[in-house]
Amino acid sequence: MVLTDPRLRDGPQVAAVQASLGGAGIDATVYDRVRVEPTDRSFREAIQEADRGQYDGFVAVGGGSVIDTAKAANLYHTYPADFLDYVNHPVGRGRPVPGPLKPLIAVPTTAGTGSETTGVAIFDLEGLHAKTGIAHRALKPTVGIVDPDNTRSMPPLAAACTGLDVLSHAIESYTALPYTQRPAPDDPSLRPAYQGSNPMSDVWSARAIEMVAANLPAAIAGDTEPQAQMLLAATFAGIGFGNAGCHLPHGMSYPVSSNVRDFHPEGYPDDHPMIPHGMSVILNAPAVFRWTAPAEPQRHLQAAALMGADVSGVGPDDAGEATANAIIDLMRRTGMPNGLSGVGYTPADIDVLVRGTLPQHRVTKLSPRPFDEADLRGMFESAMRYW
Amino acid sequence: MVLTDPRLRDGPQVAAVQASLGGAGIDATVYDRVRVEPTDRSFREAIQEADRGQYDGFVAVGGGSVIDTAKAANLYHTYPADFLDYVNHPVGRGRPVPGPLKPLIAVPTTAGTGSETTGVAIFDLEGLHAKTGIAHRALKPTVGIVDPDNTRSMPPLAAACTGLDVLSHAIESYTALPYTQRPAPDDPSLRPAYQGSNPMSDVWSARAIEMVAANLPAAIAGDTEPQAQMLLAATFAGIGFGNAGCHLPHGMSYPVSSNVRDFHPEGYPDDHPMIPHGMSVILNAPAVFRWTAPAEPQRHLQAAALMGADVSGVGPDDAGEATANAIIDLMRRTGMPNGLSGVGYTPADIDVLVRGTLPQHRVTKLSPRPFDEADLRGMFESAMRYW
Repeated sequence: MVLTDPRLRDGPQVAAVQASLGGAGIDATVYDRVRVEPTDRSFREAIQEADRGQYDGFVAVGGGSVIDTAKAANLYHTYPADFLDYVNHPVGRGRPVPGPLKPLIAVPTTAGTGSETTGVAIFDLEGLHAKTGIAHRALKPTVGIVDPDNTRSMPPLAAACTGLDVLSHAIESYTALPYTQRPAPDDPSLRPAYQGSNPMSDVWSARAIEMVAANLPAAIAGDTEPQAQMLLAATFAGIGFGNAGCHLPHGMSYPVSSNVRDFHPEGYPDDHPMIPHGMSVILNAPAVFRWTAPAEPQRHLQAAALMGADVSGVGPDDAGEATANAIIDLMRRTGMPNGLSGVGYTPADIDVLVRGTLPQHRVTKLSPRPFDEADLRGMFESAMRYW
Repeated sequence: MVLTDPRLRDGPQVAAVQASLGGAGIDATVYDRVRVEPTDRSFREAIQEADRGQYDGFVAVGGGSVIDTAKAANLYHTYPADFLDYVNHPVGRGRPVPGPLKPLIAVPTTAGTGSETTGVAIFDLEGLHAKTGIAHRALKPTVGIVDPDNTRSMPPLAAACTGLDVLSHAIESYTALPYTQRPAPDDPSLRPAYQGSNPMSDVWSARAIEMVAANLPAAIAGDTEPQAQMLLAATFAGIGFGNAGCHLPHGMSYPVSSNVRDFHPEGYPDDHPMIPHGMSVILNAPAVFRWTAPAEPQRHLQAAALMGADVSGVGPDDAGEATANAIIDLMRRTGMPNGLSGVGYTPADIDVLVRGTLPQHRVTKLSPRPFDEADLRGMFESAMRYW
């Protein structure tokens, strides 16, 4: 079963996959009804198709939406269950995946999600208006084919937004609550996909921070080698956050995206207002890291240094400002709006944004510093304008 | 089947494994006849025991010799074959492993080999007097339990030698022939374990170089946190070289170890002369990197920088000298002998050392610079004395 989305259906990547499978004597059906920003409904449709076709394996050609849909189709086809059984607590029952899935080959066509490396499938639960997910190591694709030729066609703003999402994946997992401060589950099978920052994830996250800062502006400008480095950085950051987890910039991004009024970013479909995922994430990031830095100033300073900031004279009290400034510098060089006010929000919206963040336990519980509603309000205020 | 060596048999690590398995209701037998520096004969004995016991899984408690023996026992027990079938070309037939093996949990008790991460099992083929191995990704342990408490008892010189082996693993894989310059096999199942340097291995190798330089002297002195960092560095370097491969310092080390005359290192068994593996490796390393640097000066400079050298004013022509000097500095701080002359070799031995290196294709083919006998002779000459 080859999964893709309607826009990619007739593109060269799907054709290459079909030719390769055909050449190996493997029958394949292309399923192109993946929804970008998938929902439980679109996941169920793909699962039904998987059941109908009784496939031996899966190939996902696309961005995170396609790869995540393939993970769900593979899971429920291999181990049938009520849809909520495997969905994260508290929305679903958080049941562990019983065993290995069928083979899944992931072919990313965007440099952003890193979904080819993670055991996580994210979707919107219709009716609840909340992002949630299914997370278990058994969902990790068998193989990822990470080829920059598959990502060449991104418009500049899309390259900027997905690249800054990668940056935030990396800084969030590098600064996430350390794994030594998280409670061990009663049984290893109940261990969450997101472990908190740890020495293995740190290696990937730190390198990804460096690579994004060094390559994103040139990749947006269309240089092919920096584009290749950005795709690798997305994969590296995916290994990092897929084990450590994201925290507040992602948790706070969901209400920013879902409460959009009339923002129309260049190069995106113009039929409805939207704030791209990576843009929502990075608009919160400087405000968040200013606030989380006191919990672990050295890691925040190190993140700033990895982005190229000179931190030789910077003390721990200024670590948050150093991290924020390094991110803001990259936001300005990549054409981001000036904070949440730049995409149409005013202080009057903060209550709604706070209420939309509170249910995002899946990620916010990895904040290195405990927070309450007043803290979230303060971070959203600080995110309104950066320069 | 719990594999260990006679020295560890009655130690706390084996006791902890037995208690843990017993607590989980798992019957286990301890096999303590692993030979340190294993041979085909000692591998066969372990395989026979595996066949006799019909075990469902394997736990290896020890250094690389124990973990490698467990890999071989698991392989030939799961997929019985003539012993030479899976052994590397040209010594054996290099047959690919047919499928997944039984579970193997590796518990390293030394900070050196990184064998808990690799798909390689190294042994001496008796009669041939040559190190060779079995290499396939299916041999990788299912889980590694990397706990610094298991490595606390190493004598200082053993900590120095294993730590410098880690350093050389990391620099060798970082400077190995790039994967883009190696021929693709006819079929992916024939892909060698060692791929040449590549972006995934580089991340691990670079970080391991940094960690060894920053932590080895303090780890030898007995500080526990640097010891923990050294064990992590060994694991990280293992992931690096287990995919990229080592090259000349390892290839040249085998004849250095096997032609020893009367060297007796402190803290090692005193019943026979020996040059510890890590010492043999590092004694060649500066001479090798001086010679390989012209093939890729930037990577050699980067390796020196990761070891803490100031390379800001150093040009590409001096990259080899910079790398060599950074290693020599660490050798002096960790009590290594002054080159091959420090362990009893003279220029008259070079013919023997060169002849002993030539059959080590498994690793020497990953040299970033093609070499002939005269080049090897030059490197051994340059390795005689460093200060």
